[in-house]
Amino acid sequence: MRRIVILGSTGSIGRNALWVAERFPDRFQVIGLGAGKNIDLLAEQVQRFRPRVVSVLTAKLAGDLRRRLPPGTEVLTGLSGSRHVAALPEADLVLSAMVGAAGLMPTLAALRAGKDVALANKETLVMAGDLVTTEVRRHRVTLLPVDSEHSAIFQALTGHRRQDLKRIVLTASGGPFLHAEPEELQRVTPEQALAHPNWRMGPKVTIDSATLMNKGLEAIEARWLFDLDSSQIGVAIHPQSIVHSLVEYVDGSVIAQLGIPDMRLPIAYALAYPERLPLDLPPLDLLAVQTLAFLEPDRTRFPCLDLAFAALKAGGTMPAVLNGANEVAVEAFLAGRIPFLAIGEVVGEAMERHRPSPAAEVEVILNADRWAREEARRITERFR
Amino acid sequence: MRRIVILGSTGSIGRNALWVAERFPDRFQVIGLGAGKNIDLLAEQVQRFRPRVVSVLTAKLAGDLRRRLPPGTEVLTGLSGSRHVAALPEADLVLSAMVGAAGLMPTLAALRAGKDVALANKETLVMAGDLVTTEVRRHRVTLLPVDSEHSAIFQALTGHRRQDLKRIVLTASGGPFLHAEPEELQRVTPEQALAHPNWRMGPKVTIDSATLMNKGLEAIEARWLFDLDSSQIGVAIHPQSIVHSLVEYVDGSVIAQLGIPDMRLPIAYALAYPERLPLDLPPLDLLAVQTLAFLEPDRTRFPCLDLAFAALKAGGTMPAVLNGANEVAVEAFLAGRIPFLAIGEVVGEAMERHRPSPAAEVEVILNADRWAREEARRITERFR
Repeated sequence: MRRIVILGSTGSIGRNALWVAERFPDRFQVIGLGAGKNIDLLAEQVQRFRPRVVSVLTAKLAGDLRRRLPPGTEVLTGLSGSRHVAALPEADLVLSAMVGAAGLMPTLAALRAGKDVALANKETLVMAGDLVTTEVRRHRVTLLPVDSEHSAIFQALTGHRRQDLKRIVLTASGGPFLHAEPEELQRVTPEQALAHPNWRMGPKVTIDSATLMNKGLEAIEARWLFDLDSSQIGVAIHPQSIVHSLVEYVDGSVIAQLGIPDMRLPIAYALAYPERLPLDLPPLDLLAVQTLAFLEPDRTRFPCLDLAFAALKAGGTMPAVLNGANEVAVEAFLAGRIPFLAIGEVVGEAMERHRPSPAAEVEVILNADRWAREEARRITERFR
Repeated sequence: MRRIVILGSTGSIGRNALWVAERFPDRFQVIGLGAGKNIDLLAEQVQRFRPRVVSVLTAKLAGDLRRRLPPGTEVLTGLSGSRHVAALPEADLVLSAMVGAAGLMPTLAALRAGKDVALANKETLVMAGDLVTTEVRRHRVTLLPVDSEHSAIFQALTGHRRQDLKRIVLTASGGPFLHAEPEELQRVTPEQALAHPNWRMGPKVTIDSATLMNKGLEAIEARWLFDLDSSQIGVAIHPQSIVHSLVEYVDGSVIAQLGIPDMRLPIAYALAYPERLPLDLPPLDLLAVQTLAFLEPDRTRFPCLDLAFAALKAGGTMPAVLNGANEVAVEAFLAGRIPFLAIGEVVGEAMERHRPSPAAEVEVILNADRWAREEARRITERFR
């Protein structure tokens, strides 16, 4: 029986993780849940899974939630609450699935408490990859990727000699605007950008997929997860989202992981690792898929990809600035305050104004994140 | 330094293996070579690699060869010769790359002498899979596949839990007649059948690729190499020959091995296992390949595939009969004595007339092989 904590339980990843836990009640016990504001769903989840502790964003939400729950469930609040849930003494594994920079501190709390972490929150590694991987080594815990691409790389590395690795290729669906003309991109609405062709995900990562920023963030994440140089990370557009990523070895051999585009696969793999669970999802039928295509990404129409690689190469606090500015820009786009193509402009300008410093301390990283957000907000004003 | 013996050194696999050995002289020492009749090439190989012992088919060939070699190279003949070379006391690894049923006895000799075997001779496992895998277990040696498909499966299984395996899918290029009409197949010449679109291989396996018998033989080989039930072995036509085969796991995840279609990759992998050698071949460029296609094999136009699966299910001596009859039929086709479509007819008829018995002893298997060849020869007479 693996005792698990899910941070971000009401989000897309969290809900899918609970789907997995519910199907295998003899394998998983959900002992803690962390959520933001969706206390309706959280209350339902508590009724079904009976965690010992939950955490929500504010004291007011906590009060509302407590009135709906049977006694015996401890309800905590804010950052201290989610850090507490992340470090529950009896937990074996923490799924870190909060959205954005908010995932950093709880993830660090879990690692420092000696927990294995299944990481869906890529911003944690983007902002603080050095710090996080240092904690992983120090506490001798396992960091399991949940992103389908990184799960694919992890699976394609399993059993092979690390010194034989040459490079990896992250695949990208290309998002809903893969073949859109530049003029079309100027008029993109949030509704259009939220209609991902292959994956059902939360809004933030769906917009990041449409700008290809998501693939750039994943490149930075991969750099830390697999200890790679930026030159070892390639990106290929693969519109079918069947090949989830590939590893090339020194002999020219390539190992790839494939599957239907369903987040429950990599989530279940991370939760049950090193075992695999019989999920009873539709199998991958290549004879029905028929064709797998691979294209060069268009770095002109999708400048966010190069911005992310530039941040990766610059290092230090630059990826945190990239990420913070991007979160603000995506939020502004979703609120209808800036056009789609402005997302890259906002991030690029914020990066231009930033002088990166080493990112070995949390405070330095959080300061860079705050600075980037303020800067990005100021830049978005221009579009009013 | 790994001391290797190459049986079938003048064939396509043997020559490629020596290409690998020559590039990595600090890793491999070639101590024995076995060949058939091509003593011109063998003499050249002996000059370059200085093996201690070589073996050729007949005493006459041995006499001719001895006159061309410097003293100090022992030249043996016939089956006893190749068995002796296969079991050289100082050998670490034997590459079994003879063509057809002739590979069985030397391969068994290598296993019984406690050698790890890199197996390119699929007929060995087709005829005597039970016997061979029993010897592998008894002598605690490693059997490394050299066929690109089985090397792919081997690599896609590495590091994953065997109990999580659901099924495998062997890919097939479809050969030169993938889209040929039935009437065209009736008029196929040996020259057309020998023009494989992707792979440069010996004539026997190239014809087997054109009839899809090769994929059937590989299914039987896979059954023994990976201890599978026939229902766990699928076949997909993949005209680009880039995805060399795939393994599906119980969670729906699929691991595939990819690479350019070049036999030096799986050969080098088997020779250097568990290490990978930097071969400096052109890398796989998926962005240049652009499209990977997968199609259902046409079992009507290519009946040899179903014949092989029928032999696999029948078990016992039936696969040896399939193989023996096929070798005779392919030879007859290459000699212009029977038409292309007759290959399947000859094999099918021989199988129909055979009552399989358990294949636990070499003599029983060799008898079935002899019977099948005689029977097949008789059937081919009809086409004169």
